Amino acid sequence: MRVKIVVEYDGTNFCGWQIQPKERTVQQVLEDAVFALTKEKTSVTGSGRTDSGVHAEGQVAHFDVKSESIPANKYKQALNALLPNDVKVLDSEKVKDDFHSVRDAKRKTYRYSLYKSEIEKPLKERYALKVAQTIDVKKMEEVAQVFVGTHDFKCTQASGSTVTDTVRTIYEIKIEQKTDDINIFVTGNGFLYNMVRIIVGALVFAGEGKLKKEQVEQAIEQKDRKKLSKTVSAKGLCLVFVEY
Amino acid sequence: MRVKIVVEYDGTNFCGWQIQPKERTVQQVLEDAVFALTKEKTSVTGSGRTDSGVHAEGQVAHFDVKSESIPANKYKQALNALLPNDVKVLDSEKVKDDFHSVRDAKRKTYRYSLYKSEIEKPLKERYALKVAQTIDVKKMEEVAQVFVGTHDFKCTQASGSTVTDTVRTIYEIKIEQKTDDINIFVTGNGFLYNMVRIIVGALVFAGEGKLKKEQVEQAIEQKDRKKLSKTVSAKGLCLVFVEY
Repeated sequence: MRVKIVVEYDGTNFCGWQIQPKERTVQQVLEDAVFALTKEKTSVTGSGRTDSGVHAEGQVAHFDVKSESIPANKYKQALNALLPNDVKVLDSEKVKDDFHSVRDAKRKTYRYSLYKSEIEKPLKERYALKVAQTIDVKKMEEVAQVFVGTHDFKCTQASGSTVTDTVRTIYEIKIEQKTDDINIFVTGNGFLYNMVRIIVGALVFAGEGKLKKEQVEQAIEQKDRKKLSKTVSAKGLCLVFVEY
Repeated sequence: MRVKIVVEYDGTNFCGWQIQPKERTVQQVLEDAVFALTKEKTSVTGSGRTDSGVHAEGQVAHFDVKSESIPANKYKQALNALLPNDVKVLDSEKVKDDFHSVRDAKRKTYRYSLYKSEIEKPLKERYALKVAQTIDVKKMEEVAQVFVGTHDFKCTQASGSTVTDTVRTIYEIKIEQKTDDINIFVTGNGFLYNMVRIIVGALVFAGEGKLKKEQVEQAIEQKDRKKLSKTVSAKGLCLVFVEY
């Protein structure tokens, strides 16, 4: 039986999604909980590998179990009873044996949270990045539109990454502002390593007047990571939605 | 010179505001930072003693320093350079020698945050309390109005408290709902020990249909703590504003 789960986690105290020896990872914690329930060693495959410190409100994963003694829709409650406070299953359901959380993902939406302040605010810092109060959201929106569409996004891939097919489609970048909080929603068909954090870094630079639309167009054209700005911190990033 | 500061803190890792031997408290951390700057032992007096786990966006405090080598408005930056990430000074200014953060406080506003969910959500749990999805906000609002006004609030004081003058005035209780988030703002001229958390407990019970308006009226009338419900968790509570 293949079970699909939707998972929320606070990434602060995880070394990301993917299992690594001796590190606390979301995948490991989930696999341990499935094992504790079923006594079956199984692999929990997530729609994507979120980095260390990145959060998720709607990560999707699947796993296979031989026993059907626990109905698929009961895994939610059963796993939550065993999981720590910083990772919980929001939904579980039985899916066809050929469902695959990575291959079948059509669109993913990430949110990056910023807040305008002079001072690093203790109640904002866990889930958002501080930016200057003078940041110009109109300029951010203008540069955001340069990224939208199907492009070779090599310039937004972390240096050292070995992925060679770097063409991706961004369907939408939406920026919402409410008083001092700015949320950037990026929806695409898939993302390269650090891609959202590099795009947001470019938007922040644009909003600070340090990067122009033409420079971003050039960076994409020339596939030049160095033409963009820094990679923003993981803590502001959250995987909110995976569509199948 | 008397300096007034506005302080924000994440209460999660503090044993409350007030200094206690061997515990990490906000007051201690602030006094240590003032000492590190000035080499003067001073007492940092807060407008009120928030409990262990309670947060603040706008706590107000004052302290006296003999030296005027650091201008009052520079304490913000100077203290923030020394303070840990979970407590920061949002503002500092020189005030008259007879200003007193406790005695001169006219109105205080606390916010209590709830979220409607079946599951304890990792990204909400740090700053809010989970309530049932079926909670009735209209009923909460109706019962909230019973608390508004000048009353003997003995029924909302933690048992064991030794405060004898238990008459207080609540100016306003405002409940804001946005999708699954419910924020309760309580403004009053002062609060007894656990008063806001006991009032919110009563409102949650009211919203769950477990407590009626008449029972709350009776509890106030009879000064009977036992007629109200439990004290809700500290983590959802935040001191947002002190007016002078």
